[in-house]
Amino acid sequence: MNAPILALQRSPHAAMTAVSVDSVQLKDRLLQPLRETIRTVTLPSQIELCRNTGRVRNFQIAAGTVEGKFEGIYFNDSDVYKLLEALAWSLASHPDAALEAEVDELTAIVASAQQPDGYLNTYFMFEREKDRFSNLRDMHELYCAGHLIQAAVAHHRATGKTTLLQVAVKLSECLWKHFGPEGRLAACGHEECEMALVELYRDTGDARWLQLAHRMVQARGQKPGMAGGDRYHQDHAPVEEQKDVTGHAVRQLYLASGVADLLLEQELPEYMQAQLAIWENFVNKRIYINGGAGARYEGEAFGTDYELPNDRAYAETCAAIASIMWNYRMLHLTGEARFADLMEITLYNAALPGISLDGKQYFYENPLENDGTHRRSPWFGCACCPPNIARLLGQLPGMFASTRANTLFVHLYASAAMQLNLENNRVELEIETDMPWQGKVTIRAVRADAPFTLALRIPHWAPGASVSVNGADADSTLQPNSYAKLENVGQGDVIVLNLPMKTALLASHPWVSCNYGQAAVSRGPLVYCLEQTDNPDCDVRDILLPVNASFEPCELKNLPGVQGLKAAGACRQPEGGSGPLHQLLHPEAAPPAVRPVTITAVPYYAWANREAGPMRVWIPLTH
Amino acid sequence: MNAPILALQRSPHAAMTAVSVDSVQLKDRLLQPLRETIRTVTLPSQIELCRNTGRVRNFQIAAGTVEGKFEGIYFNDSDVYKLLEALAWSLASHPDAALEAEVDELTAIVASAQQPDGYLNTYFMFEREKDRFSNLRDMHELYCAGHLIQAAVAHHRATGKTTLLQVAVKLSECLWKHFGPEGRLAACGHEECEMALVELYRDTGDARWLQLAHRMVQARGQKPGMAGGDRYHQDHAPVEEQKDVTGHAVRQLYLASGVADLLLEQELPEYMQAQLAIWENFVNKRIYINGGAGARYEGEAFGTDYELPNDRAYAETCAAIASIMWNYRMLHLTGEARFADLMEITLYNAALPGISLDGKQYFYENPLENDGTHRRSPWFGCACCPPNIARLLGQLPGMFASTRANTLFVHLYASAAMQLNLENNRVELEIETDMPWQGKVTIRAVRADAPFTLALRIPHWAPGASVSVNGADADSTLQPNSYAKLENVGQGDVIVLNLPMKTALLASHPWVSCNYGQAAVSRGPLVYCLEQTDNPDCDVRDILLPVNASFEPCELKNLPGVQGLKAAGACRQPEGGSGPLHQLLHPEAAPPAVRPVTITAVPYYAWANREAGPMRVWIPLTH
Repeated sequence: MNAPILALQRSPHAAMTAVSVDSVQLKDRLLQPLRETIRTVTLPSQIELCRNTGRVRNFQIAAGTVEGKFEGIYFNDSDVYKLLEALAWSLASHPDAALEAEVDELTAIVASAQQPDGYLNTYFMFEREKDRFSNLRDMHELYCAGHLIQAAVAHHRATGKTTLLQVAVKLSECLWKHFGPEGRLAACGHEECEMALVELYRDTGDARWLQLAHRMVQARGQKPGMAGGDRYHQDHAPVEEQKDVTGHAVRQLYLASGVADLLLEQELPEYMQAQLAIWENFVNKRIYINGGAGARYEGEAFGTDYELPNDRAYAETCAAIASIMWNYRMLHLTGEARFADLMEITLYNAALPGISLDGKQYFYENPLENDGTHRRSPWFGCACCPPNIARLLGQLPGMFASTRANTLFVHLYASAAMQLNLENNRVELEIETDMPWQGKVTIRAVRADAPFTLALRIPHWAPGASVSVNGADADSTLQPNSYAKLENVGQGDVIVLNLPMKTALLASHPWVSCNYGQAAVSRGPLVYCLEQTDNPDCDVRDILLPVNASFEPCELKNLPGVQGLKAAGACRQPEGGSGPLHQLLHPEAAPPAVRPVTITAVPYYAWANREAGPMRVWIPLTH
Repeated sequence: MNAPILALQRSPHAAMTAVSVDSVQLKDRLLQPLRETIRTVTLPSQIELCRNTGRVRNFQIAAGTVEGKFEGIYFNDSDVYKLLEALAWSLASHPDAALEAEVDELTAIVASAQQPDGYLNTYFMFEREKDRFSNLRDMHELYCAGHLIQAAVAHHRATGKTTLLQVAVKLSECLWKHFGPEGRLAACGHEECEMALVELYRDTGDARWLQLAHRMVQARGQKPGMAGGDRYHQDHAPVEEQKDVTGHAVRQLYLASGVADLLLEQELPEYMQAQLAIWENFVNKRIYINGGAGARYEGEAFGTDYELPNDRAYAETCAAIASIMWNYRMLHLTGEARFADLMEITLYNAALPGISLDGKQYFYENPLENDGTHRRSPWFGCACCPPNIARLLGQLPGMFASTRANTLFVHLYASAAMQLNLENNRVELEIETDMPWQGKVTIRAVRADAPFTLALRIPHWAPGASVSVNGADADSTLQPNSYAKLENVGQGDVIVLNLPMKTALLASHPWVSCNYGQAAVSRGPLVYCLEQTDNPDCDVRDILLPVNASFEPCELKNLPGVQGLKAAGACRQPEGGSGPLHQLLHPEAAPPAVRPVTITAVPYYAWANREAGPMRVWIPLTH
């Protein structure tokens, strides 16, 4: 099998090559159990939900095999496609005859709805046939097509089957007719198709799809705008002139992913410059500390610089996933560790919270402060997030490593086995670690047909990291946010990477006024929060965090295997939400009374898996 | 003329009686010049805008006198009605033949569109006639009717003419047929009609309108809900069981106004209890420091308790006006000073910011923090706020005083003359003060046919207030948030009220996390903000406020007559929006470097009247 997330073997501008998802087997006690839950609980339940909510039946109605009317939202096809993609990635790691039979059946149903000209969108059938491609801004037709293409590519790579790929190619030929060089320039209101088409090009070698993706990117920001002409749709300016992440967060980040995919294939310096500019804007002005993207409920959108409300953070789960997709592409484009670093933070702290630990419920929005009323749901009318988190976790092993010539890059750390082909070299690693709970990583080169270079990512959170090879300390200083390169690693070598894992208190830029005088707690790659259930002695909204608080790991009730943090802190007196909303500040008054309490923090990804109660990521500081 | 805002002479549960708008003549240098601008600039421009945008023509089309199709939003009739009401209140204070001719013409146009059965809504004409009253939740038909009724009552009181009143009565009879005891119970998605009908009852003496208003209030919170069944529409529970201000802020506050109007007429203890509960929730958990109402853009809605973002405060101008209307009613229902206190704060700091000082541009949303991009507009597609602020300022003199038997209550302070009829007594006052800039108020009883009681409101911001009569200090202590009652005031008496006006720094309840470690500056009834144009030496986002800052009044450039405040403060170093978004907090590190600067604050109502730039109400504190 060769089932990489991105097939970059022939991409001329790739700094590294993505590895096949099945070439890495996770064996840790956080991600792999969740992936197993996805396979055994989540995916079967999503299949059932897609059937019960009419999403599958819509294809049968379109095919004429079932009587009825289209049901649901006009972009519901995309949920079936994303689910198919999630199933395909699951099969890549874990062959499963029952799931594969489901995939075959769903694939046949999808294929049966395709029109003779290749068109496929079950909403635009019968009386709505005349409206096809008439409102690209709002109706998500190219978005749905993109998800079909991505599913087909994944299905092809994971199973070797071309049944879904043939549907995708036929649909793409329909798109080519309408929007290729002989057709009209078109931009979809919801980006997604761009990266899908590039991947279809990589999978098939047919350059039309790369060209079509490029045309779709070029179509943005024209006068008048074809996708709304506004920031909401990233259509306010040509892509090469865009300077910030703006508008609908998922669309923005899918567009950026598509542009990164173009850059992996073509020399387009003006796009490259714009990509770096909007990335800088994202990470320096508009990202939540957990990697969450999108400050506003209205428009599911990015806010202005430093606009990062906590209680009303939108931070859609899909936006976190889109950010990981973008950063994964930027990593392969540039080889720079900062993109993998952001992947790691976003994975643990912004994507994982999107699903409950039992694999049955989902967050759409991810606030960083809540009064206890925000809880996960088993499904949504607009059900983009559930299959999206399933496909991310399906792809996940592929994100742990990449290769370039005779170098093996390790981006993320977890107990795992890897079997990788370098240039004229076969390398197999066994990795042992208790990440994300402890920072020691032991890597055994159980096979190396020839010496190779091992490039280990040093996270930004690990200053003072050190490495030894066969017990001998390497002499070089390891720089955070870079790759430490160990040359001439041979079969039998044992590399021990020590990533110091200290609890850190983090402060925001002072212009983030909602976080002023407050700090967040992190340890290693994890961002923590206070949840009421762990803090029975004080309302978490009254907890004060000493600036010199000293946290140590602890167990958490009813969360086996999840490591908490505890420290001595303070509880503001009097407690509780009484008292006036605004009152005179008395400069001469004594500081507010406090009572000592033990503060217990839980990893943010694990919040809202127990009884409901207030939660806070940012905690007021006390001196 | 007897043109009170509320005609409470015969209301059995009124603790005081509203005075005629023309019985108070403002002579101050803030409100009265703005009122004059409204008369000479704003109202003529709004007439022109209502004509140019098809709002007036819609009535002509409905009447069949002009060919065409309805233009604009389905509730656009209400803007014409609110403008008519604003014109009527303006005429009450200031007869103006040209404006009255406009009113007569507009009234005739409105009347011409009324249907034989009394129905009047220009959207539901011709092919939409069949849809009348079919979607009360969304289509604002009763809302529009309410604004017509309010305009008609104001027009009748201010001019003595019954031309518009006849239209309102005829429409009300149509409503009675559909929604009275012989019709169906109905709740409008946008409350407004309730208070209008009570006022129509007071104006005409016809008890049907009171009964209909009561039915409309009773219709809320039924199962299934008639107005959506949700919090957005205040339809989640019966009104007597509602415990918080919730959903769309203007609708919530208009509903509360209507319920207060009912309570002035009827003994309904369960409503009274609910009114007090939601008022407490409003002022203790959900109001901005400036009186602004509505934390969320989505739904123009109240948030949860303590959810008060500053940069994305919605705080619609109409919601501030609605709050003043509600509190004016609660004041007359209870006689309690706290309601007048909130009227004052909201008037100066949440309603006045809604209009530019030149009377030509409007804010719809009123953020308490901005990067300089939020500016007033000359009009809106949804143009509720512009005529609403005009009618508020038209009514305003009527809000300064009330009467009960032989007592004259003064609620608000400004230089003014008043001529009022008490019980068998005629009293005329001359009031001299430089409020809101200075707290000394001199009141001369230039006429009093008999001794009377003068009840002076002591604002919450004036602890230490004192009063003298003819130079002799009164011996009683004046309690903030109460009325100081001076008995046996006679003709020729001179009362001097001293309201200490000190600059105060105010802090929020600690659960308002966006304001943590920050303070707002107020002086007297005014809330201040920092605007960049007054602070050339430091980006206002880098200004730090010493907890013991000592402000003194100052002039402001390009804002003649507006008093600023200045103090020694600090500017955070390095300045500007660079640096990482999140970084390690170093407890042992030296405090951030600062540079001394002079801080200059401007009253919040006057912001955005000069060059654009960042603005902040809440300022980070430094010790």
